Amino acid sequence: MNVGFIGLGMMGEGMVSNLLKAGHTVKGYDISAAALERHAKAGGIATKSIQEVVKDVDVVMTMLPTGAHVESVLFGKDNAAALMKPGTIVIDSSTILPKTTESIASRLKEMGLAMLDAPVGRTSDHAWSGTLIFMVGGDAAHLEKARPLLEAMGEVVYHCGSNGAGIRSKIINNYMSIVLNVLTAEALTLGDKANLDRETLIKILMGTPAGRSHLATSYPAKVFKGDISPVFMLDLAAKDLGLAIQVGATDGVPLATGAAALQVYTTAQTHGRGREDWTAMLVHMHELAGLKK
Amino acid sequence: MNVGFIGLGMMGEGMVSNLLKAGHTVKGYDISAAALERHAKAGGIATKSIQEVVKDVDVVMTMLPTGAHVESVLFGKDNAAALMKPGTIVIDSSTILPKTTESIASRLKEMGLAMLDAPVGRTSDHAWSGTLIFMVGGDAAHLEKARPLLEAMGEVVYHCGSNGAGIRSKIINNYMSIVLNVLTAEALTLGDKANLDRETLIKILMGTPAGRSHLATSYPAKVFKGDISPVFMLDLAAKDLGLAIQVGATDGVPLATGAAALQVYTTAQTHGRGREDWTAMLVHMHELAGLKK
Amino acid sequence: MNVGFIGLGMMGEGMVSNLLKAGHTVKGYDISAAALERHAKAGGIATKSIQEVVKDVDVVMTMLPTGAHVESVLFGKDNAAALMKPGTIVIDSSTILPKTTESIASRLKEMGLAMLDAPVGRTSDHAWSGTLIFMVGGDAAHLEKARPLLEAMGEVVYHCGSNGAGIRSKIINNYMSIVLNVLTAEALTLGDKANLDRETLIKILMGTPAGRSHLATSYPAKVFKGDISPVFMLDLAAKDLGLAIQVGATDGVPLATGAAALQVYTTAQTHGRGREDWTAMLVHMHELAGLKK
Amino acid sequence: MNVGFIGLGMMGEGMVSNLLKAGHTVKGYDISAAALERHAKAGGIATKSIQEVVKDVDVVMTMLPTGAHVESVLFGKDNAAALMKPGTIVIDSSTILPKTTESIASRLKEMGLAMLDAPVGRTSDHAWSGTLIFMVGGDAAHLEKARPLLEAMGEVVYHCGSNGAGIRSKIINNYMSIVLNVLTAEALTLGDKANLDRETLIKILMGTPAGRSHLATSYPAKVFKGDISPVFMLDLAAKDLGLAIQVGATDGVPLATGAAALQVYTTAQTHGRGREDWTAMLVHMHELAGLKK
Repeated sequence: MNVGFIGLGMMGEGMVSNLLKAGHTVKGYDISAAALERHAKAGGIATKSIQEVVKDVDVVMTMLPTGAHVESVLFGKDNAAALMKPGTIVIDSSTILPKTTESIASRLKEMGLAMLDAPVGRTSDHAWSGTLIFMVGGDAAHLEKARPLLEAMGEVVYHCGSNGAGIRSKIINNYMSIVLNVLTAEALTLGDKANLDRETLIKILMGTPAGRSHLATSYPAKVFKGDISPVFMLDLAAKDLGLAIQVGATDGVPLATGAAALQVYTTAQTHGRGREDWTAMLVHMHELAGLKK
Repeated sequence: MNVGFIGLGMMGEGMVSNLLKAGHTVKGYDISAAALERHAKAGGIATKSIQEVVKDVDVVMTMLPTGAHVESVLFGKDNAAALMKPGTIVIDSSTILPKTTESIASRLKEMGLAMLDAPVGRTSDHAWSGTLIFMVGGDAAHLEKARPLLEAMGEVVYHCGSNGAGIRSKIINNYMSIVLNVLTAEALTLGDKANLDRETLIKILMGTPAGRSHLATSYPAKVFKGDISPVFMLDLAAKDLGLAIQVGATDGVPLATGAAALQVYTTAQTHGRGREDWTAMLVHMHELAGLKK
Repeated sequence: MNVGFIGLGMMGEGMVSNLLKAGHTVKGYDISAAALERHAKAGGIATKSIQEVVKDVDVVMTMLPTGAHVESVLFGKDNAAALMKPGTIVIDSSTILPKTTESIASRLKEMGLAMLDAPVGRTSDHAWSGTLIFMVGGDAAHLEKARPLLEAMGEVVYHCGSNGAGIRSKIINNYMSIVLNVLTAEALTLGDKANLDRETLIKILMGTPAGRSHLATSYPAKVFKGDISPVFMLDLAAKDLGLAIQVGATDGVPLATGAAALQVYTTAQTHGRGREDWTAMLVHMHELAGLKK
Repeated sequence: MNVGFIGLGMMGEGMVSNLLKAGHTVKGYDISAAALERHAKAGGIATKSIQEVVKDVDVVMTMLPTGAHVESVLFGKDNAAALMKPGTIVIDSSTILPKTTESIASRLKEMGLAMLDAPVGRTSDHAWSGTLIFMVGGDAAHLEKARPLLEAMGEVVYHCGSNGAGIRSKIINNYMSIVLNVLTAEALTLGDKANLDRETLIKILMGTPAGRSHLATSYPAKVFKGDISPVFMLDLAAKDLGLAIQVGATDGVPLATGAAALQVYTTAQTHGRGREDWTAMLVHMHELAGLKK
């Protein structure tokens, strides 16, 4: 396929290398001259403007730092969208706000163009090795057309739903892993400050939901089945968390995520969930978010 | 062995059933007459006082709601500790503050008695099936004596270190899984509120540190080896977390743990860690906790 | 009056100096010999045991570090309560958990003794100058008997309600001022990091609820009157708070209290309060706490 | 003066009424036809386009919902900035991100135009009564030119510094009052849940920094003078906050801001500030924010 690729940074360059390897023609554009030069050396076609890069291609890929960049490229001074041939598929792999994605998608649609939001999981190493994860939002038909490209660059391609579903999945996944990073550091630091043997501690954690995740253990066993009769009572979870917060205060380990979580347990208790299973937290969160039961 | 067991509640009753099954003699005590009756029916010896239950046994086990209960039984009006024969091992499986555990252990030691803090992981179901996890603090020699009992009741026995290390490990493990419960509910609710397909979302999460844990993925690959060169830059993690917080505010999903975590990322950035790997969060947490590098 | 005073630390010593000045007889006790010596020099009667200090006095005052200390003095090994003459009033000025206060009060009552919880506001400087604030819980009759003592030591005496109400008022007041300390530091640091003139900024803050308090401005004007029609819409407050959180993240100022507060605004919005006045936050908090409207 | 006013919403309409009263000529623009009609009735000149409203005026005022709106009006399709006569002063009273303000100001400057960021304090009631507060960023000379307008609409005009300083002051002020709203609701709810008399509680709060603010009490007395010797030790503040968190957990009152604040106290303690005055929190916050001492 003929691809126009905008944004040849750490991720973009690796991704393009795999498109080229798979035999696709890739016009590239970046504001960095050095990046463009590397692109040409790698077998791509370096272009000097956004107008040029989007002309006569089947697919335009964007991998840019912010939503404002993507909007500016497509609809701003450059007005790239107006220059694309009808039916061009724009694949945006940038990490941006879903509402920006959704607005871009609807504007492109009005112009007779298609869009996939296809942000990537994993890191630049995986971009180079062609083992990224793509989380895709958009029409199935457009995804099928673009699939050869995505599979050249990635190991797994998830179709998450309509436009916005891809970027939302990415943001949710990152949300969970980025917060878990702090929680993990807090837990280990509690152990380190008390001179616990770290290897033993990790062995313990890896045998429980702490390390194995609730998604693989407690949730499927209980709340996903609609069963919130107590195996581990929410009141007890709240009590144990309170103890941990006290240990943190005494030992001098700040437990920011835990202190925040404790307040959520408190509202779950005031809402009558204390004697339910701790996985009823999901039901409580739905209530806090104003979702109907 | 001859065991005196104090606290025949949801957990205690199950634990005792496995001690009896393994052929041990178990005197039991509880303030509930019904619990005592069940104990007698199950083949145990029901006693009418704490004085009675601790007399002439090799091991006294306590499974009580709070540290105040444990202290009151051992040193309060009942003064059970004073009635035990020299060398008796007190095994406390209650979940209490480590500083209470440590104070109890040192008072018992002064009286010529031994102590193991041996709180349990998992639930009452596991207590009945004899598949608990024991996290034990105390002398290895005392643990070896008590091991047959613990192995009758549990599947895995971890020796975590000296007195206090068992209860600390339990509290840390519970801290992590109890907070992760909130984080998991937040992430799923973000998806549910946007009508994402939950199964696809979970598949995605289970393929990244979000569901596989940092302890099994990013930490061993990076910070545990002392390598914090960026694979995924902390600055980018902070940026993505900021996007998620905005999505939560827009969509009406409260993200208490994430909002707290974002502030920790901010201090990591002001402390010069923005261009390090996100797993440098562990190093930053050490600094916040006043641990020497 | 004859007073037995237990705990001659930084606060206690200053308080006693004013009792003596007012002509009361004060027996004192402390574990520190130096403190006792100073007490004798100041005109007090130094005693060598808790038994001695509580004997034949009208009032026993306790000013101790923790609830465990107070309980141990009154009901532990020393068993001071049992040695007091009937009708003795125990005034506890320690800062401890209300549930401990309430339990102590009911145990004393059973023994024919009276109790006032009378924790103090302000600092040791005020203890010396006799200008403390007393927040008192207990029977009005007992307070009237003890009033001459409290007025010798303090400038203002508040009768907050029955036992526990004094310590609760103290804890709530300290809660608010201690958290406000962090919030104030956050706000000023936002200004300092952007090089704003601090004096001008403070002038601005002192002209709005930020510095003048909601209790003196917005609450009496609105929610206290049962009026939550919007003068400043909660949705707009949430939006502005979101902007501030973004500024903090961009500028590198951690805003822990604000990030936590934003999540409370989010739940207020999901509960349909977005278009109400921002002071409807109080109504929302009542709901979160499970209070009936 | 001749003024073009863009955005005749709840705030804008009231502000314009005072400009007209003071004898200024006001062309107005809004997307709402009803708003334009009211504007004409009130004595203003209703215009049908942004091009028209900015032509041949001395000052253009914008009062719009978001930064994107302001940028779009000035530099987007309408391109209003290009149509203004040289030397026109743009006064933006919208509440937007400071970095947007700063970017707008520098673009206008390049075009030979001036800018003041002049967001307002208080509410629409004050807009109508001409008693707003203006927090102004920009050159003093431009402010002097615009002052008659601002004084027609407001009671107090603060010159906060160069462009961006006005909007930053507004955001900081709102940050503090919006978070304080949650903190105040938490404190009162603690009292309400324990059935404390609310009037007495408020009297107590209004006698301490809780209600009188640290800016008027503890900070000028201590940290602003560079004195952090302990009057109220940070360790004690942390201890009291810990008690309050426990009370909240026991009583079922979620204390989100307090739980977050406690973690900041913990890091202040691990950084060696436990025995300093509690106002040293400001110094600690500077450190967390990476400000040099």
